[in-house]
Amino acid sequence: MKSLKYIFEPKSVAVIGASATPGTVGNAIFSNILLSNFHGVVYPVNPKYSNVMSVKAYKDVIAIPDAIDLAVVCVPKTIVENVIIQCAEKGIKGIVVITAGFKEIGESGKLLEEKTIAITRKNDIALIGPNCLGIVNTQKEISLNANFAIEIPHAGNVALISQSGAIGIAALEYAHQHDLGISKFVSIGNKAVIDESDILEYLIDDDATKIITMYAEDIGHPARFFEMANKANAKQKPIIIIKTGRSVRGAIAIQSHTGALSSSDIAYDSLFAQCGVIRVETLAEVFEYAKGFTCLVHPKGNRVVVLTNAGGMGVIATDAAERNGIEMATFEPQTLDALKKTLPPNANIYNPVDIIGDADAERFTNALSIIVKDKNIDALVVSVTPTVETDMDAIAKSLCDFAKSNPDLPILANLMSLEPEPLFEQILKKANIPNFDFPETNIRVLASMVKYYKWINQPLTKVTKFEVDKKSVRDIINTIQQENRTHLTEPESYKILEAYGMKVVDYRVAKNLETTILAASQIGYPVVLKIVATEILHKIDVGGVKINLKDENELKKAYHEINESIKNKKLDDKIRGFLIQKYFITKGIEIILGADAIQGFGSLIMFGLGGTYVELFKDVAFRLAPLTRQDALNMIQQTKAYQIFKGFRGQSTYDIESIAEYIIRLSQLVTDFSEIKELDMNPVKVLEDSQGVIVMDAKAIIEVQHSVVEQKIKSEKEELVA
Amino acid sequence: MKSLKYIFEPKSVAVIGASATPGTVGNAIFSNILLSNFHGVVYPVNPKYSNVMSVKAYKDVIAIPDAIDLAVVCVPKTIVENVIIQCAEKGIKGIVVITAGFKEIGESGKLLEEKTIAITRKNDIALIGPNCLGIVNTQKEISLNANFAIEIPHAGNVALISQSGAIGIAALEYAHQHDLGISKFVSIGNKAVIDESDILEYLIDDDATKIITMYAEDIGHPARFFEMANKANAKQKPIIIIKTGRSVRGAIAIQSHTGALSSSDIAYDSLFAQCGVIRVETLAEVFEYAKGFTCLVHPKGNRVVVLTNAGGMGVIATDAAERNGIEMATFEPQTLDALKKTLPPNANIYNPVDIIGDADAERFTNALSIIVKDKNIDALVVSVTPTVETDMDAIAKSLCDFAKSNPDLPILANLMSLEPEPLFEQILKKANIPNFDFPETNIRVLASMVKYYKWINQPLTKVTKFEVDKKSVRDIINTIQQENRTHLTEPESYKILEAYGMKVVDYRVAKNLETTILAASQIGYPVVLKIVATEILHKIDVGGVKINLKDENELKKAYHEINESIKNKKLDDKIRGFLIQKYFITKGIEIILGADAIQGFGSLIMFGLGGTYVELFKDVAFRLAPLTRQDALNMIQQTKAYQIFKGFRGQSTYDIESIAEYIIRLSQLVTDFSEIKELDMNPVKVLEDSQGVIVMDAKAIIEVQHSVVEQKIKSEKEELVA
Repeated sequence: MKSLKYIFEPKSVAVIGASATPGTVGNAIFSNILLSNFHGVVYPVNPKYSNVMSVKAYKDVIAIPDAIDLAVVCVPKTIVENVIIQCAEKGIKGIVVITAGFKEIGESGKLLEEKTIAITRKNDIALIGPNCLGIVNTQKEISLNANFAIEIPHAGNVALISQSGAIGIAALEYAHQHDLGISKFVSIGNKAVIDESDILEYLIDDDATKIITMYAEDIGHPARFFEMANKANAKQKPIIIIKTGRSVRGAIAIQSHTGALSSSDIAYDSLFAQCGVIRVETLAEVFEYAKGFTCLVHPKGNRVVVLTNAGGMGVIATDAAERNGIEMATFEPQTLDALKKTLPPNANIYNPVDIIGDADAERFTNALSIIVKDKNIDALVVSVTPTVETDMDAIAKSLCDFAKSNPDLPILANLMSLEPEPLFEQILKKANIPNFDFPETNIRVLASMVKYYKWINQPLTKVTKFEVDKKSVRDIINTIQQENRTHLTEPESYKILEAYGMKVVDYRVAKNLETTILAASQIGYPVVLKIVATEILHKIDVGGVKINLKDENELKKAYHEINESIKNKKLDDKIRGFLIQKYFITKGIEIILGADAIQGFGSLIMFGLGGTYVELFKDVAFRLAPLTRQDALNMIQQTKAYQIFKGFRGQSTYDIESIAEYIIRLSQLVTDFSEIKELDMNPVKVLEDSQGVIVMDAKAIIEVQHSVVEQKIKSEKEELVA
Repeated sequence: MKSLKYIFEPKSVAVIGASATPGTVGNAIFSNILLSNFHGVVYPVNPKYSNVMSVKAYKDVIAIPDAIDLAVVCVPKTIVENVIIQCAEKGIKGIVVITAGFKEIGESGKLLEEKTIAITRKNDIALIGPNCLGIVNTQKEISLNANFAIEIPHAGNVALISQSGAIGIAALEYAHQHDLGISKFVSIGNKAVIDESDILEYLIDDDATKIITMYAEDIGHPARFFEMANKANAKQKPIIIIKTGRSVRGAIAIQSHTGALSSSDIAYDSLFAQCGVIRVETLAEVFEYAKGFTCLVHPKGNRVVVLTNAGGMGVIATDAAERNGIEMATFEPQTLDALKKTLPPNANIYNPVDIIGDADAERFTNALSIIVKDKNIDALVVSVTPTVETDMDAIAKSLCDFAKSNPDLPILANLMSLEPEPLFEQILKKANIPNFDFPETNIRVLASMVKYYKWINQPLTKVTKFEVDKKSVRDIINTIQQENRTHLTEPESYKILEAYGMKVVDYRVAKNLETTILAASQIGYPVVLKIVATEILHKIDVGGVKINLKDENELKKAYHEINESIKNKKLDDKIRGFLIQKYFITKGIEIILGADAIQGFGSLIMFGLGGTYVELFKDVAFRLAPLTRQDALNMIQQTKAYQIFKGFRGQSTYDIESIAEYIIRLSQLVTDFSEIKELDMNPVKVLEDSQGVIVMDAKAIIEVQHSVVEQKIKSEKEELVA
């Protein structure tokens, strides 16, 4: 098994391509390792030099007399393959390839990269890169700075994984400037061998790492990422990710049938949502949230108290609370009484508590000691503006004392500084109290903490499995495949759903007028009459659908009209028969259920409200199959439609449990049969109270299709080139 | 006329309450003025001292032998009144009262404040405060730092108005730290005499100020603010405002009928939207946007080019562009050709342009000189990550040269720093190129610039006035007031609308069965039958409404049922007659139009889609009356419903012009008659194509009512106290 221990915790490192020339990568890496107080031995390898920076150099790794754990490769790309063969020969188990010019430049580079992969696979080598910036381990007993950017970052508990080298550097610089401590840094580049999930697996067991941050442009193996993220949750290590490439989604956002909406970015959103990963939109947020989580205290709920010496900050925090789903705690009467007795008469004793501009450290302490006794409090934001009377350092100190005696209460500070690097920031940092520029940031960060800890503390539910008739579905799919078809007929789609326990509106299939009339009389009028055909996708367009037929006469008339139309269009031979369906006018709410296979992710399940307006409002939710009951309920609750099902404004209530059940049954179906590439139930009628749900129409495809996103990207590229 | 010249540009200043004791406000203010290189004369006034900081002190202003332009008052509140009387006697025309303890502490303070106001009114004195932190003018020829926070901020073109003193200080500190130049600062405190609109009026003509930022908790006189904001627009001075107090809105957001949604924060949103004021949600945004506008170059459109040495930054910027409504420019073929020839083969020549990590200043210059020739470009974002090869200062310099030769192209930089205060930031600052931490900020800021300049460059439209029958409305309102009623009957509401040229569904009023039947036959079946009553608000609840009556028999039956029900409920004497209306089933889209009088703001006009679902999705727009045609069209376009009217997914189109016309007619009605406190047209049916719109139902109230917001705040306070 390849191990990342050789990468992050080597006892000896060879820098292949080390150089004494300043401004070169080989020089930057070697000198960074040499000067970063690395606890092992570093060997420069370069046939051109006898020594590099006064350290004896070797012509190749083979020539080094000692065992080597890690090789950092920064030689020209043409000799990378050879160097790696030598590393393998030497028995090196960890390699970081800085050199670029592989997969990212096209076919020739891809070939080179594949050769490299083959060697590492054969020899059980963990390889980072190529086309990366290196790695850092700030742990005191290692102290390895094998990247070429800056001096070793401050040690801390935040790990940083970056797919982009440049963003990795920028992030490191930013962390350095803002004094955010880093445990490990890794620029994963082309991810030829080691990808983000492998790094996650390592970090989960890395005691120095408490928070994991990541810049990603794709996730190599979603299923493995999902598994690792859940393991990280079990260890209460939050993962904060900025995953770019959302914008294609916007381009297709108007379309709202399953296929269209199921762009891969939605798959990423679903993936992250289903394993508690905190997805952010901006780099600034990555660091803000990471800083917040460094306090390592879990809010038990979402009720915050804002304590300030400036009323305006209290108002800003309150607005931010509402915007971010944070509740301003309501005090118990005894808290109000105590605050009233202790604070000056001009103070505002209600939350946000304003203890006025002349508040000193003592007044803050007094207020805090009262507030903390209130049982309605889950977190604390302390916002202090500098005034003539403010001794910020003293307030910071008393806040630290308070935090020490209340280790279970999350405290986020917003002490505003008069200088660029104020002393109080160091004081707060030592006590693990994160400090932010503006109170709205405190609230936003707190909201993400609340959400994360709520997620990891929720009871684990298993994927529900219903008793189903797998064999019938298998038979239908086999038939279709034998007939070399991709699109199921409506009766086929219905049968698949029925086999998985879903109720479809009453229907019959008939071959001629006589059996059509019989079928209608069995179902009961009014009915719908449709053609059954495998090669006609838009039945309405060819006059193949007649609705609301109230009696036998109307049915006969419709039957003849359909046949006439079909004959005129010379489609007679495509017709397999007739579908007679109940024309269902019972009151209810129309919803859409769908599933769409996404390359690499499995099936993406969609739930949403039906109807024209709703396409406009895009009130839909997505999750990746397989789904637990909780997942299904979360999907429903996430939509505004949930308000309707609960009984909007005193109107009827609907059977939410049944909707959840159908979502799970759909999930089970597409999980059992990955051949199903698309399945749309539109509409599904949700009946009032607990009368259940009925599928009114369904379509299914069992074929590999290019996703809408891929098509969109393709056509955009063509446009650009044209 | 009171003039702010005495406040901001005094030749002589008296600090009343000046003190030599460090840590006191009187000391801070006096020493700040004395040490800020003030170009006039400053006099300490304090009967306790013969001198303050070696400057001769006076026992009161009267004792000063010279004329005084500005008095800064920081004496105990009990003697403020007396001090102001003395100032008036001395002929001082500008006063800043730092002292707190007035309106903000309740009745006693309010009384004190009113006395002060009376004196200043009588003597034409411009007074800032009380309960404020002072003012600053950084202009070289004035250099006045009459506040008690820090040393004088860097001079620049951003004015800062703060209602909260503490936030004012925090903002000043932040600006100081982030090197944002300030022209004027004013803490307006209780706004007893001078309010934000007065300051705006002054700043509009202040050449040193190009951008106006503001922290506000309320706007004293919305109409005057509106006027001043428009004047600022004419001078192309953007106003960036953070107005707090949104959160009450959220508490009532679920309710979506006019009254409920028309909270005062919506009035503020409308006010700002109607005069191009940039409202932001966070303090951080105030400064980001102000920084962006300091480049003073107007984007002509929203097409941006992102040029970077790091692909990842390009992706982040592209995502941000889509999120913020900014278009990634598409290059002309010749641009692509030229870029291809000039840039290394690994570069990405499509926008976002990635010229790779080893790009030097020359490559940036080369790329820029090609890109700038493309006619599809409105703005430029340059994002540079530090790599071994990057000479940031050189890149900054070449960017400045480029900016100099392209003065009409807005350039926003994102040069990332290796040090806390890098040299290149100074280089960029001198060339007026704003630099931000992350590319997403550049895009967000650019978006606000695009929006602002689009707003101020739009053609000015006048408020449309239709020919209407004012007299009829006056008569109806007189009648209602004489009868001491507040709620109009339906026929009264209809008549008012008809008088203002709005079409109401065909109706008649009848007194008995005979005339009811006659009315129905004139209208034509099916009809609706309703009671007309002044004191019964919920007619359905008392069985007073029957719909879809298809013939005379059904009408008769309904008539008797209604009368039976009314009799049983002993409501006979409340009935004024019967309303017979066409039961209108023509296809169309239901909308809601409403007007709600908001204290201080005039009437807030609402437009939105009708129906249950839409209440859920809150697809509504608001504007303050009176409205121009453009305002009305903006309202419609702002909603998602606009997509429906335009013909959603190949469905029917609707008459948008007619909707706009009805919005304007409603605006005209409530502007002409401020007695109308609430007017709801719900639903209004919009017919297909150009068949116009018809009001189906309407309600009106002519009474001063407590707004829902006020009620909500009141009940919340009661809860807190209980």
